[in-house]
Amino acid sequence: MTWINGQLKASLPVSDRGLAYGDGIFETIACINQKLHLWSRHWQRLQQGAKQLDLELPEQQTLLNWIERALTEKNNLPEAVVKIIITRGSGGRGYKSPEQPQPRTIITVHPWPEHNDNDYQQGISAMVCQTCLAPQPSLAGIKHLNRLEQVLAAQELSARNGREGLMLECAPADNDKPAKKIVIEGVSSNLFFVSRGQLFTPEITYSGVNGTIRSELLERAQALGIPLTPGRYELQDVLNADEVFFTNSIFGILPVSRIIYQQGQKSRHYQQRDVSMQLAKSLNPELQRPCQFNNL
Amino acid sequence: MTWINGQLKASLPVSDRGLAYGDGIFETIACINQKLHLWSRHWQRLQQGAKQLDLELPEQQTLLNWIERALTEKNNLPEAVVKIIITRGSGGRGYKSPEQPQPRTIITVHPWPEHNDNDYQQGISAMVCQTCLAPQPSLAGIKHLNRLEQVLAAQELSARNGREGLMLECAPADNDKPAKKIVIEGVSSNLFFVSRGQLFTPEITYSGVNGTIRSELLERAQALGIPLTPGRYELQDVLNADEVFFTNSIFGILPVSRIIYQQGQKSRHYQQRDVSMQLAKSLNPELQRPCQFNNL
Repeated sequence: MTWINGQLKASLPVSDRGLAYGDGIFETIACINQKLHLWSRHWQRLQQGAKQLDLELPEQQTLLNWIERALTEKNNLPEAVVKIIITRGSGGRGYKSPEQPQPRTIITVHPWPEHNDNDYQQGISAMVCQTCLAPQPSLAGIKHLNRLEQVLAAQELSARNGREGLMLECAPADNDKPAKKIVIEGVSSNLFFVSRGQLFTPEITYSGVNGTIRSELLERAQALGIPLTPGRYELQDVLNADEVFFTNSIFGILPVSRIIYQQGQKSRHYQQRDVSMQLAKSLNPELQRPCQFNNL
Repeated sequence: MTWINGQLKASLPVSDRGLAYGDGIFETIACINQKLHLWSRHWQRLQQGAKQLDLELPEQQTLLNWIERALTEKNNLPEAVVKIIITRGSGGRGYKSPEQPQPRTIITVHPWPEHNDNDYQQGISAMVCQTCLAPQPSLAGIKHLNRLEQVLAAQELSARNGREGLMLECAPADNDKPAKKIVIEGVSSNLFFVSRGQLFTPEITYSGVNGTIRSELLERAQALGIPLTPGRYELQDVLNADEVFFTNSIFGILPVSRIIYQQGQKSRHYQQRDVSMQLAKSLNPELQRPCQFNNL
């Protein structure tokens, strides 16, 4: 079932701007024992998205009440994924927003996806997607509803039976020099890599999502004394790395064993797991004691 | 009222991928005396969009029957705007499409917008938007549902009471040389400009929509012997032009009298209308004799 602004509804007016233009934002939150994991980071990103799109959010407590209502209805699920979509609602003239938008908050609860233990132990193979991420500073970082790039990249994954893919930044070909292959993130995750004991992650300035686990790891790496530098890195930097992993709010930290690029060429086998294990250990207590649902 | 796959419906399941990811395409078609203007070009663009997104379209005749049904219900409207949205429907795992998608075709009929005769006679002032268009070759040309860039640009128009704005291509700032200000199109239109008797329009390779009137004018300019070159042009080329105009399927050809850029600086006053008038004249018979609705 679906909840729209706290009411049980099965459907949405077709006039909603979320459908017409992708005019809205979303979050996908891990819920463990009816507790929302890293809620404050999800709420922070919603606020950032609302600011960038000039969108009005419900009050935090109202939103939490709505989520609780949706979770209560599903009380047979010990673990679940809570998805929140907030759109600008209906109205406006063409692309122009209505003068007084009536946003819609849509909450759905989904079963926890099956995780393959082997993926965490052995690491996964990751392909390099042909679909690139267009540099758009006005939308970078936030989790907005314009996700066709990810849909196209996911088609590539499906076609090659891939688990996750690495996405590069789009670059118009009219520069005088060949375009750099700047790495941004995974199809539905952020990317980290380790070289000579240092941790690196692409900066989220022109494209990419400011992931909640990514933000969490930026803080934890610092606390653990692991040098971490967000920046503009090239595919070759990742191929040369000692350790590579993806992160997202549902699968957590997922190690990469190999990267498959251009015509099936393979990177070295990344066997090191030191840094990802250390970070995962630091994240785990949090996973077992997620922030209180009703008591922030 | 709204028609979904030929059925009268007021709403859409919230699980639709059009809402979740903007996973679909749309068309906005001028309907004059219940005849669809430039239908074959709209259909062509739907086909292109379906190809780029690997989306299944309904049969052309089925789609036309559904449109007719929606228009018949509104038979009191002599002129109308027909909007078609085609989404990939519901389902799939995250960004991955379902194995057998059940697309939804959503048809709504809207009143013809009021046009201001003065805009056509005097031309309009156009601002240069801060929001840029990200270069994304996989999505360029088609009219997909990821329209946040246009929504943000339209917010700029609203804030400055602008009629239409000019959008430039986004460029990451890490190049060695300053980014070129490449012009792409208007917020909801294509751009043309005339310099020394030659007609120019930005190419739609990395971003921008392959407009139906734009395609029509490319053909007509050739027939009229007007030299026309699509290419990568800079804002300065437009500022230096003798004649500037926007085109879209609803307002047709709209002349620009001035461009307002950086801190209210203004371009010269474009007084020439020769080429746009000549093209409009060539387009007008078509506007009065649109392609037959049921008889392509």
